[in-house]
Amino acid sequence: MEHIKSDCAAKILLKNDNILILTHDHPDGDTLGSAYALCRGLHQLGKKAAVLCTEDVPETYSFMWAGVEVQCFEPEFIVTVDVADAVLLGAENEEKFKDKINLNIDHHSSNNLQADFVVLESTAAATAEIVFDILKYWGVKIDVPMADCIFTGISTDTGCFRYSNTTARSHNIAAFLIEAGANSHDINQTFFETKTRVYAALERLALDFLTLYFDGACAVITVTQAMLEQSGATASECDRISALPRQIEGVKVGVTLRETQNGSFKASIRTNGPVNAAELAGKLGGGGHVRAAGCQLEGPLEKALENLLRVVEEEIS
Amino acid sequence: MEHIKSDCAAKILLKNDNILILTHDHPDGDTLGSAYALCRGLHQLGKKAAVLCTEDVPETYSFMWAGVEVQCFEPEFIVTVDVADAVLLGAENEEKFKDKINLNIDHHSSNNLQADFVVLESTAAATAEIVFDILKYWGVKIDVPMADCIFTGISTDTGCFRYSNTTARSHNIAAFLIEAGANSHDINQTFFETKTRVYAALERLALDFLTLYFDGACAVITVTQAMLEQSGATASECDRISALPRQIEGVKVGVTLRETQNGSFKASIRTNGPVNAAELAGKLGGGGHVRAAGCQLEGPLEKALENLLRVVEEEIS
Repeated sequence: MEHIKSDCAAKILLKNDNILILTHDHPDGDTLGSAYALCRGLHQLGKKAAVLCTEDVPETYSFMWAGVEVQCFEPEFIVTVDVADAVLLGAENEEKFKDKINLNIDHHSSNNLQADFVVLESTAAATAEIVFDILKYWGVKIDVPMADCIFTGISTDTGCFRYSNTTARSHNIAAFLIEAGANSHDINQTFFETKTRVYAALERLALDFLTLYFDGACAVITVTQAMLEQSGATASECDRISALPRQIEGVKVGVTLRETQNGSFKASIRTNGPVNAAELAGKLGGGGHVRAAGCQLEGPLEKALENLLRVVEEEIS
Repeated sequence: MEHIKSDCAAKILLKNDNILILTHDHPDGDTLGSAYALCRGLHQLGKKAAVLCTEDVPETYSFMWAGVEVQCFEPEFIVTVDVADAVLLGAENEEKFKDKINLNIDHHSSNNLQADFVVLESTAAATAEIVFDILKYWGVKIDVPMADCIFTGISTDTGCFRYSNTTARSHNIAAFLIEAGANSHDINQTFFETKTRVYAALERLALDFLTLYFDGACAVITVTQAMLEQSGATASECDRISALPRQIEGVKVGVTLRETQNGSFKASIRTNGPVNAAELAGKLGGGGHVRAAGCQLEGPLEKALENLLRVVEEEIS
């Protein structure tokens, strides 16, 4: 395994063809935006490339693959984008590809995915920022769909330039993309300024169960399968709820526990101030960033909560 | 009255001294950020300058005036920033200054304030963007407090780079300010990522009274004096609520009606799609931007609502 810079990754990609790009499961704007921007760039270079995601991708992202030529080929070079751990490839892709990854492009400091080459920039707000540098190195034309992909990656991973991972670099790239024609208003509208009635209903249900612990230093929202059924919301609509518990004044650790279909809980951890979310999640078998991380907790809820709060207490004290 | 560009305004300011800067009432991040950045720039140039606001300014903004020298002088040149109409100066300043304004710097297309010189850039996301250009023209050092003032103006007027007024220019300036040391994370945290418990309580109360009209094309939230008392919130905390009604899927016009102490209602109008908020507010005696405008409506609530909905119906049909 060799750690390299983005320009070196750009050169390696230039020397290869028949490139398969893998995203993480429960795909978000950054993994998808990075994957489709890279794929579109490789097509411009005349290479065969495709994106593979084990899960169904929400229709909200369909602008990313609109007009992308579907190419059939035997993969010769495997790239992952925004995938911090083999398990996040999803069971099917993990089994098929985990020992065959050639290039791993990511911004999660906790990244431990095995690959021939690794580009890991933990100061990048989004993996899409690294992909942007690769596209610029190639000198391909950043057309409107590519600009939309990169913009979505950066805006969704920064909470629309709001979270502390946002840097001057994020803003500079955003300015470039808007000048290149990115539909930034539509993207912001879709991902940040529109609440479906279903989501609004889920949010109210979830907020009713917001509980504060340790003198208000920790806030936990639980989203059960029953709430998802009652509101009609899907698991992907929970992503936005994850931002809420940390927003309450005085909260250092905000956690959203989402019950999965097998009764375990997916914990989204967001922190303020001194608490490191990646370390906290790491103690529970997960990982992520300093301010945003995640892990999986065994059910039932009482057990998941007990395990979580035990580690939270250690971290905040 | 002469319309001029920002570079010309910069030159005019260079020729004057003993400069009084006026903000609008119910002051927000843009009017205050513009005023204090300008004031700090003028002080760097060795001029006497001060900011005057008729109302008490929330402590949240105190970083803007921290360390600014208080200077006593007889005003010789009056500048307004982000003030679209004389009435918005507040009763006291309106009476004192409305016929004496030398320079009016603003980005509201509906601006009708009388002044010797007017810089009106309706494509600027915030008046702070225009002030930034003036500071750059002067070549003064944009130090950390100035960067914080300008950043606050832009981020608060764009909903943290989220609303459709955000441009490449906004992002380019933000990148510059972050590189100049702006405390962008703290500012975003304060204005966007922190809900006081009092605000959270007000939000829940107000959302209980969210009502949809015209098949869901119009959403109205009412904040009464009773709700403010029950939650312990202040009027300035209502600003954030204004963003909520427009966020519901399918809503073209989102309105927040805030009851004032004299029983009239301050309407904050936010629109999507084809509806022009400034035109709508204009028909009710107010003004503003294409997507965000405001007006005052006489009480009681039933009357205010009837007047509002009559005009909304005209605009959406």
